[in-house]
Amino acid sequence: MDVWAAIEQRRSIRSFTSADVSESVVERILEAGIRAPSAGNRQPWHFYVVRNRSVRLALQQAAYGQSFVGEAPVVIVVCVHPERSALRYGERGRELYCLQDTAAAVENMLLAVTALGLGACWVGAFSEDAAARALSLPGGLRPVALVPVGEPAQSPGGAPRRPVAEVTSVVN
Amino acid sequence: MDVWAAIEQRRSIRSFTSADVSESVVERILEAGIRAPSAGNRQPWHFYVVRNRSVRLALQQAAYGQSFVGEAPVVIVVCVHPERSALRYGERGRELYCLQDTAAAVENMLLAVTALGLGACWVGAFSEDAAARALSLPGGLRPVALVPVGEPAQSPGGAPRRPVAEVTSVVN
Repeated sequence: MDVWAAIEQRRSIRSFTSADVSESVVERILEAGIRAPSAGNRQPWHFYVVRNRSVRLALQQAAYGQSFVGEAPVVIVVCVHPERSALRYGERGRELYCLQDTAAAVENMLLAVTALGLGACWVGAFSEDAAARALSLPGGLRPVALVPVGEPAQSPGGAPRRPVAEVTSVVN
Repeated sequence: MDVWAAIEQRRSIRSFTSADVSESVVERILEAGIRAPSAGNRQPWHFYVVRNRSVRLALQQAAYGQSFVGEAPVVIVVCVHPERSALRYGERGRELYCLQDTAAAVENMLLAVTALGLGACWVGAFSEDAAARALSLPGGLRPVALVPVGEPAQSPGGAPRRPVAEVTSVVN
């Protein structure tokens, strides 16, 4: 799929069929994720690929009950390893770079999902503590996004955007 | 360009020819940026398109002298409007969502730049205060990335990646 088409056709999908997503497809999605740039190439990320149903339901609870989190056959939990960035960049690494780096990885994954004809949603509204408990995360990892992935059971329109002219200033 | 090719071929370009980048090309890059998802569709971003040479040099100084910032014909300064996110999401909007949303926009722009045969670099190492002064930013905006864009004068190899297996845990 053309990159422009992927960017334009990406949607937040919040309803999934019961169709599974194969390991090799998840691998392709993750390969897109790890190609994201990161400050100093620190790659301060770790991905949990959750297929286990009771863990998915625990993540759903962590996400304040958003039911599509548990419905999706796979939930990719994107974690940052803040100290990987902080080691070189201090507070700016911990509070900015590692969040940006993983967000770029999520966007790459969402575009890959779109190109594969699948659906996903970037979920930020969840309790980090509850998600960490659901996954028994080691202390150094912080979960920053849940990405349920599956076959879409809906085809929503795109969310409206403020036009470029409204969100741009030109300094000639 | 295929989305996989764009993801794989994106590079951090730190040397540019003197060739200009037209307004319509910058517009296409920004259109890719604003298609990024954002929490609650808040779109908490503002983009400064800087062509003015003395302002580019001030940004170069803000970026601790990284000379390619001033060399590029265009520097896109990506700003967050934290209160747009905080209004709905409080601290989580201010400290996480708005940073993630704008990072996704940057990644989309970098992929667009790649597809257009141009080069860019995500610059995070700069003084936010100095960049804000260079642009006379209004108080509500925080600059979080500098993205110099131009015709590449180098073709670096890709940075090595930790393999997927090393950065993934599976929960079956």
